[in-house]
Amino acid sequence: MYTFSPASIDYQARLSAFMDQHIYPNEHRYEEQLATASNRFGALPIMDELKVLSREAGLWNLFIPPSLAQFGDTEGLSNFDYAPLAEIMGRVLWCPEAFNCNAPDTGNMEVFMKYGTEAQQEQWLRPLLAGEIRSSYAMTEPQVASSDATNVELRIERDGDEYVLNGRKWFITGAMYERTQIFIVMGKSDPDNSNRHLQQSQILVPKGTPGLKILRPLSTLGYDDAPLGHAELVFENVRVPAENILLGEGRGFEIAQGRLGPGRMHHCMRLIGATQRCLELACKRVKERSTFGKELSQHQSVREDLANSFAELEMMRMLVLKACHRMDEVGAPAARDMIAAAKVKVPIMAQTIIDRCMQVHGAGGLTADYCMAEAFNYARWCRQADGPDQVHLMALGKQVINAYTQD
Amino acid sequence: MYTFSPASIDYQARLSAFMDQHIYPNEHRYEEQLATASNRFGALPIMDELKVLSREAGLWNLFIPPSLAQFGDTEGLSNFDYAPLAEIMGRVLWCPEAFNCNAPDTGNMEVFMKYGTEAQQEQWLRPLLAGEIRSSYAMTEPQVASSDATNVELRIERDGDEYVLNGRKWFITGAMYERTQIFIVMGKSDPDNSNRHLQQSQILVPKGTPGLKILRPLSTLGYDDAPLGHAELVFENVRVPAENILLGEGRGFEIAQGRLGPGRMHHCMRLIGATQRCLELACKRVKERSTFGKELSQHQSVREDLANSFAELEMMRMLVLKACHRMDEVGAPAARDMIAAAKVKVPIMAQTIIDRCMQVHGAGGLTADYCMAEAFNYARWCRQADGPDQVHLMALGKQVINAYTQD
Amino acid sequence: MYTFSPASIDYQARLSAFMDQHIYPNEHRYEEQLATASNRFGALPIMDELKVLSREAGLWNLFIPPSLAQFGDTEGLSNFDYAPLAEIMGRVLWCPEAFNCNAPDTGNMEVFMKYGTEAQQEQWLRPLLAGEIRSSYAMTEPQVASSDATNVELRIERDGDEYVLNGRKWFITGAMYERTQIFIVMGKSDPDNSNRHLQQSQILVPKGTPGLKILRPLSTLGYDDAPLGHAELVFENVRVPAENILLGEGRGFEIAQGRLGPGRMHHCMRLIGATQRCLELACKRVKERSTFGKELSQHQSVREDLANSFAELEMMRMLVLKACHRMDEVGAPAARDMIAAAKVKVPIMAQTIIDRCMQVHGAGGLTADYCMAEAFNYARWCRQADGPDQVHLMALGKQVINAYTQD
Amino acid sequence: MYTFSPASIDYQARLSAFMDQHIYPNEHRYEEQLATASNRFGALPIMDELKVLSREAGLWNLFIPPSLAQFGDTEGLSNFDYAPLAEIMGRVLWCPEAFNCNAPDTGNMEVFMKYGTEAQQEQWLRPLLAGEIRSSYAMTEPQVASSDATNVELRIERDGDEYVLNGRKWFITGAMYERTQIFIVMGKSDPDNSNRHLQQSQILVPKGTPGLKILRPLSTLGYDDAPLGHAELVFENVRVPAENILLGEGRGFEIAQGRLGPGRMHHCMRLIGATQRCLELACKRVKERSTFGKELSQHQSVREDLANSFAELEMMRMLVLKACHRMDEVGAPAARDMIAAAKVKVPIMAQTIIDRCMQVHGAGGLTADYCMAEAFNYARWCRQADGPDQVHLMALGKQVINAYTQD
Repeated sequence: MYTFSPASIDYQARLSAFMDQHIYPNEHRYEEQLATASNRFGALPIMDELKVLSREAGLWNLFIPPSLAQFGDTEGLSNFDYAPLAEIMGRVLWCPEAFNCNAPDTGNMEVFMKYGTEAQQEQWLRPLLAGEIRSSYAMTEPQVASSDATNVELRIERDGDEYVLNGRKWFITGAMYERTQIFIVMGKSDPDNSNRHLQQSQILVPKGTPGLKILRPLSTLGYDDAPLGHAELVFENVRVPAENILLGEGRGFEIAQGRLGPGRMHHCMRLIGATQRCLELACKRVKERSTFGKELSQHQSVREDLANSFAELEMMRMLVLKACHRMDEVGAPAARDMIAAAKVKVPIMAQTIIDRCMQVHGAGGLTADYCMAEAFNYARWCRQADGPDQVHLMALGKQVINAYTQD
Repeated sequence: MYTFSPASIDYQARLSAFMDQHIYPNEHRYEEQLATASNRFGALPIMDELKVLSREAGLWNLFIPPSLAQFGDTEGLSNFDYAPLAEIMGRVLWCPEAFNCNAPDTGNMEVFMKYGTEAQQEQWLRPLLAGEIRSSYAMTEPQVASSDATNVELRIERDGDEYVLNGRKWFITGAMYERTQIFIVMGKSDPDNSNRHLQQSQILVPKGTPGLKILRPLSTLGYDDAPLGHAELVFENVRVPAENILLGEGRGFEIAQGRLGPGRMHHCMRLIGATQRCLELACKRVKERSTFGKELSQHQSVREDLANSFAELEMMRMLVLKACHRMDEVGAPAARDMIAAAKVKVPIMAQTIIDRCMQVHGAGGLTADYCMAEAFNYARWCRQADGPDQVHLMALGKQVINAYTQD
Repeated sequence: MYTFSPASIDYQARLSAFMDQHIYPNEHRYEEQLATASNRFGALPIMDELKVLSREAGLWNLFIPPSLAQFGDTEGLSNFDYAPLAEIMGRVLWCPEAFNCNAPDTGNMEVFMKYGTEAQQEQWLRPLLAGEIRSSYAMTEPQVASSDATNVELRIERDGDEYVLNGRKWFITGAMYERTQIFIVMGKSDPDNSNRHLQQSQILVPKGTPGLKILRPLSTLGYDDAPLGHAELVFENVRVPAENILLGEGRGFEIAQGRLGPGRMHHCMRLIGATQRCLELACKRVKERSTFGKELSQHQSVREDLANSFAELEMMRMLVLKACHRMDEVGAPAARDMIAAAKVKVPIMAQTIIDRCMQVHGAGGLTADYCMAEAFNYARWCRQADGPDQVHLMALGKQVINAYTQD
Repeated sequence: MYTFSPASIDYQARLSAFMDQHIYPNEHRYEEQLATASNRFGALPIMDELKVLSREAGLWNLFIPPSLAQFGDTEGLSNFDYAPLAEIMGRVLWCPEAFNCNAPDTGNMEVFMKYGTEAQQEQWLRPLLAGEIRSSYAMTEPQVASSDATNVELRIERDGDEYVLNGRKWFITGAMYERTQIFIVMGKSDPDNSNRHLQQSQILVPKGTPGLKILRPLSTLGYDDAPLGHAELVFENVRVPAENILLGEGRGFEIAQGRLGPGRMHHCMRLIGATQRCLELACKRVKERSTFGKELSQHQSVREDLANSFAELEMMRMLVLKACHRMDEVGAPAARDMIAAAKVKVPIMAQTIIDRCMQVHGAGGLTADYCMAEAFNYARWCRQADGPDQVHLMALGKQVINAYTQD
């Protein structure tokens, strides 16, 4: 029915083997290093070791699409061909970084590839592609509904050869991380422009720039997502050189639009991988535990839950694959209905499936002894990341109604 | 991502054109003929007219797979390639018969093609393929859970050159229909066989055989599904010649197994077509109706419902396509996990979507003024047809658990 | 916790005994008389017999509240005390008429009691209270969203000593019934009044008035609800005497508001009774049927479904009781949040529970062999009757938001 | 409809006033003290201050029922009359301890009151009632499904004047807390007894007893519930005097049964309080935030969510009140159907409502800036506490089926 390219199929096999050999056996070590780290947002030695191994294994920067292949070492993979790889990586939440394929760096690198000057690419993209530094994308603001990008309030004002930034951001993933060196910041450079989509600009702000304060880490459902973390930031008269503007003043909205399709599908596929692993754990669990004289696997309601979860996972996977394929064919803007459909369906369905998988594990299912609780948090968070479900449903609903009333 | 064969794509276009030209414009006439028929289970003139047209248009017997192409006029279509055609036909519940593609005749014809003797094929298959007669498949019994085929109690006993049948069946689709001439009856010929799957046989019983009584039509949610109908039957010392046995004594279970995969997927695809049409109607409706000063299409909850319905329909469609594709590749038995997944997910999701579409139509949505209420009944009925969801979930759950605990 | 009055408790016992003695044993006879009636909307002999018996048993007109007790033979029952009686009657969908407690006659009688002139009461209320004639309430119109009462378009124009009516109505319950003699019709007498709630009037139109055409019966999910039925009506220059106006010109909205609280709660309680009975049937069924070597009652998923249904029924019942109690204490307008809460929750939950109960009955659960399929239709219909759920949720949501943001 | 006693109504007013004056204004201080504590499981100064104030206000030990009033300073409150107080306290998750009404101490104190010797009461109950020490109840074990109490494996063996304990427990709430001094431990003293309900005993183990190791704190969904915490414990040849046995050898199951009814309803009521507060926050939020040119409160889907949440909260509350009332009337064992109904319905419904309330808060709704995420964790955890939902549904299903098939 659908056929992945030979390259994708080959990568799938090699990536799975790498997971078996290097990732799963190191999960405990990773958690230990994190739990005992003096700085929860510091770099972990195990991650650096794994990065060396994955580069050697040729599993580095697989997210790069064919159109940007000149930036990588491979011929590039379409969104469709990359999807199963993202799913495999998603089985261990922290491991995409080991392949230089973690959010938000992949999206940021794409921005640099597509919109950066040569100097910007040399300074930031090169070390990002090498995994030497990390980056953040600063879009969301606490005081407005940032899912409507035109609401963004952070001010970017020209002052001579510089831009001056004032405002507040939060949920800035990676901002806490000590490796993070550069922030791509969305703000308003021309708030009075009558075209609401030309008011925004995106600009580069190196960490450490005076006036940029990292206020605090934020948690979701009790998770701080260390070492990357989600931070709240304040910009107080932050000055950067004028050449730090990306693509040009007033083109921030355009960059934001171009960035979103692939990133959303990557999240979906990683989440599917995480959910798939939870389902596999649940299947093992129900064969090992008995209650009221019967193996859990013999209970009809347990079987129904696992059967439904299997079927739902297939549906989720197929929907994302279709969205990826369409995005490859016609571009993200024209595929926005399928992207939105996947974006809203996958997280809520994943949340439900993982909830069931936790439940068959008893109270232990809620603890850190299994990967399920953290995967649940990832699913729940995805229902807000890049805009709440409701916003995407509103847009999709409008498209659907139009599509069937045009004659 | 997935590619239908050029033949399938061509049929899709021609079938859609035929629907536009001959089916949709005749819906009202069909309903009128049925409503005013002296016999609710008699043949309708409009159907005979449409059958002539569809044969002329080369849209006849499209359900025949390549492996049985010698029985049709085409090269045959794989389940995957036939799926979109079944979806299109499903948009008008009564119209598959116009293409000789309605249940249970398609499944019965397949049984004759695969398991019938030449004499049986000459007598029954030929007129079935020509659409001259109709057939029923008598499996379900009122007094036992027939979803477990080994529960079937109707007795088939050898007596000299004849078999004698005693028992009771119900939900026998088509049995009320005046065109129906032949029943394929499942029963127990060897109830004491220690192998529970060798106890059953299937045997041909012509309508009118003495002792076979058609007791009454059954309705589901108020629908009698005329003119085909679902009947309750009694077999009292019904005698048929020994050669009426299909394939041989004790092979009834085997025939039942071989029959089920494609039929279930056809139901799913037709139901998806019916649901898709309901969604399109709902989209039109919300642009035409205003309440509390606002077009319905402007209400966020309406948009969310329609957006979710669109996304769910895509997921359902992809799941069935995957099941069909897999069935084509490895056969129905090896694809039984995907078939079960589609079988349980599509009807319940269709029921939910159609329910939403009815709701935006106000009280009128529940009436016969729209196709939605009857489509709702079809979805609800499919959750029981060929076994209740619970039975398929039980089997699928077991397969899923085994699949992930084998290492 | 809650205490019904001694009178209510006494009625509950007597009503249950009457059901056991006269209603349940006659269900089959009722269905037979209906199925074989020459006129599906004619009066059935069995109903007339039962009405005599229930009057003799003192179980007549129990819906009358204490404030209107002068119209009945009892001291009247509060909504709270009447609720369990409505639940008991709801166990057999057609039987409330046997106690003169069926919709829409109860609501209509209340309108006559509260707003009728002595002459109107003598002419219409007296025979209604005696069960000699039936009545309809004509509010909903096909071409507008009538859940917003200000949308009503039927014109009521003064012409000398008469009013002239022009317009169209549908879903007029009871209009098909041969016993129905009088229609209470809502329309616009002053469409240009700047106060949208003073544009409407309600007026009495006797059946048979020239210009009033009963177009056709409407069905919901395949049910025509005979013999009462739901009809579509056309008013073409229908003339009635000026004294037929109720309460006075421009007071139609006021009457509509006053009518709704109790009627909605009666529907809820009857539906709870119907659902309760389905649950009881399901419990019996699962003890009688085995599948895959096990009684259905032993399957964990069956137990979970029935346990959840039991709990949900308790919650539904308590919610309606609370709404009734509050309505008794502060009147329907001040209790509108609780009434709306019950109005939206009970039907959808009933629909879900009945769906489960049908499912454990196999295909038979969908047929007329059980009361479940028709109860399902009743639940589904209640989600539209007196306005779709969405309208009530919108109003309730606004009230809730206001309630918690007033400080 | 239902009437709380004058005492309960008076306490409700005083408790609400106390919350307004002392609890809500101190939430931030509490969190700060916890966040900056050198020991996450140490006692917090603010808690000690509040305890003094609540005693002075006469809001101490309100959980004590009338039958045990001799142990308190009041006449005792029935479960029904205490329920609204538990709801009010539940609005701030950590505050029940300030009223000496937190789990598991309330249940443990009840055990001491009902089953303790005078010496045990003097040593442990007196300081517990005074709030000087805290206690744990050690039931759940990691290696077995402890929801089936007969599965418990910890061994309690008599050795001369002592009992020797060997085994492992987890999810022992309060065990991490520095104030906790005494553990009530469930184990098997007679594993070969043919009566499975006589194999267990409960025994007192003071913290610090040699061989008792507190292994680690457990988290649920990222929350460690400090300072009480949930701990994993190991018992290695733990020796306690024979008089530490509660009630007598073999009576552990009996004690466990007697303990559960009220505790479960307290959890439900506190959770309802927490959920109610989330709903109120959501109502405020939707009036303060605009998106796409409209206040959130104007979106139909937002209103529907809040309306449904309001209605569901009413239903949950009524169900728990009914269960409490019934428990007061006939005792917990005879009220076990209603208790189970409330136990399974309230947490899952609370989880859903809180999820909606988080969602209207955007990404911030998932953080610790609001009480919602932690309330979500409480709801999710309650679906496992005292046994997973499935176990209670199984038992309830069986009771329901029996109840309706006894004639």
